[in-house]
Amino acid sequence: MASPTLATPTPPPTLPSVGYLGPPSSYSHQAALECFDNNTHTFVSQTTIADIFVAVQSKTVTYGVVPFENSTNGSVVFTLDLFCDRNNTYPDVHICGETYLDVHHCLLSCEEEIKSLKRLYSHPQAFGQCEVWLNSTVKGVERIDVSSTSKAAEKAKNEPGAAAIASRIAADVHGLKVLARNIEDTSDNTTRFFVLSATERSEPTQLDGRSDKTLLSFITDHQPGALCDGLKVFKDFGLNLTSIVSRPSRKMPWNYIFFVEFEGHEKTENVTDALEALKPHCAEMRVLGSFIDKQKLRKPSAVVA
Amino acid sequence: MASPTLATPTPPPTLPSVGYLGPPSSYSHQAALECFDNNTHTFVSQTTIADIFVAVQSKTVTYGVVPFENSTNGSVVFTLDLFCDRNNTYPDVHICGETYLDVHHCLLSCEEEIKSLKRLYSHPQAFGQCEVWLNSTVKGVERIDVSSTSKAAEKAKNEPGAAAIASRIAADVHGLKVLARNIEDTSDNTTRFFVLSATERSEPTQLDGRSDKTLLSFITDHQPGALCDGLKVFKDFGLNLTSIVSRPSRKMPWNYIFFVEFEGHEKTENVTDALEALKPHCAEMRVLGSFIDKQKLRKPSAVVA
Repeated sequence: MASPTLATPTPPPTLPSVGYLGPPSSYSHQAALECFDNNTHTFVSQTTIADIFVAVQSKTVTYGVVPFENSTNGSVVFTLDLFCDRNNTYPDVHICGETYLDVHHCLLSCEEEIKSLKRLYSHPQAFGQCEVWLNSTVKGVERIDVSSTSKAAEKAKNEPGAAAIASRIAADVHGLKVLARNIEDTSDNTTRFFVLSATERSEPTQLDGRSDKTLLSFITDHQPGALCDGLKVFKDFGLNLTSIVSRPSRKMPWNYIFFVEFEGHEKTENVTDALEALKPHCAEMRVLGSFIDKQKLRKPSAVVA
Repeated sequence: MASPTLATPTPPPTLPSVGYLGPPSSYSHQAALECFDNNTHTFVSQTTIADIFVAVQSKTVTYGVVPFENSTNGSVVFTLDLFCDRNNTYPDVHICGETYLDVHHCLLSCEEEIKSLKRLYSHPQAFGQCEVWLNSTVKGVERIDVSSTSKAAEKAKNEPGAAAIASRIAADVHGLKVLARNIEDTSDNTTRFFVLSATERSEPTQLDGRSDKTLLSFITDHQPGALCDGLKVFKDFGLNLTSIVSRPSRKMPWNYIFFVEFEGHEKTENVTDALEALKPHCAEMRVLGSFIDKQKLRKPSAVVA
């Protein structure tokens, strides 16, 4: 007798997943929701930015969303150091997109009044973005760094005399009162996030790649003038630099890893040729990825440098 | 009768004063003592780096000593932001010298054993310089940021279960036990300090200024390619760039103040001409100062970029 044919249940379709810096309701969560459709993706909270890099590299998540810089407070050094990848821990992680999130900080607490506050919790970046307001309104109140603004809201929830600097959304999630709104130093306070992937690299949006940007890291050769020679290459190939930052290479003191961002896509001939010309001036070089220039889409006339 | 001639007591000679980031025994104090003779200068402890800038600008102190960057952990963002001087608060403050201090961190406590520790105090820069050791030995122990490593030692003194990351000297000053030595991630962990003054600018050490370095800040003109054009000037005049860092200008999002350091002295003809050539590419420009290249004196063969 033939064995009975068992109906195999169809497995539920696996949705692509997006790792973000949690807990839920963080600015990173909001940025992730701006980049990916909630109906066709699952969202996975991660404890640290390093955890997101690990999850993307191991393909535990399809994408990762990480903060890169803030318009008031500058680079997110933790993220830069992960991109430095000094021990080659994340060889497949690259950037495939960027997004910009308007950041408005609020002061949240269980207390009714600012004068009852004895302690403030927030992420160091958020403290840095509210310096002027903090120094004028709650000068002398102890500040305690925690790993995220959502974590700060959690802390403020159960502690008399405590407040958090966090988002408006965090007030609803944690049932806190909003004692002050929009306390950031500049009204156009914006955080830029990168979308990471360990699989396919992006294609140019247009044939000439002029709607794209590319982020590159390199360590210059140990020759005097190597940095000048390297930067001149971008000028020679007509590639407009949009930013430069540096971090210690940790190979020897006062040797740096430079992060250079320019207009263009790594898969166009002009950029390929420029990177070939740059190589002789570099001890190491890595294309961290190309992606659509979302800033141009936000503000068509903005020129960054 | 003629009035008696009173012998006017000779006022004690006023010694030049040096402001440093206190409290006493801090790394900044050690750096100040390396730059100035204890017998011919008075040393004044200041609470914050901003206080040092204020004291130098108001001529309350003759000199100020501020940390600028660390070979492991990069720029001291607080100092960079003060050099940005976005509201022109410190128009006369400039750099007249630099010094390098080898930094060895210790774990200090009243406790006898590391396993008794529940809380670590230190400056964020010191935590950043000891990441590897902290993550392997005291992972999970709460970390609390304070304004200096000396302050951390003070805290650890009176609190059961607490420890500080601070200097060997701080253990003696505060009567703490050294639970671990040299816990920094890299053995050649060095912090670079600048000497500030509001009076005379330095003269070139040699006629051609090749033993000097100059630090410059500028904001590029709002033209595409302005950063490339600006950096090309250094190449054209044969000026070797030794570092570039950037901070948000806060004039508009994604517009930056660049800090460029190069070999040469502001009072030589070549540098004067180069700065003239740079001007058309800049919306703002400021020579922060020229000073003897002490790094060259330390390690004659070191090339930084």
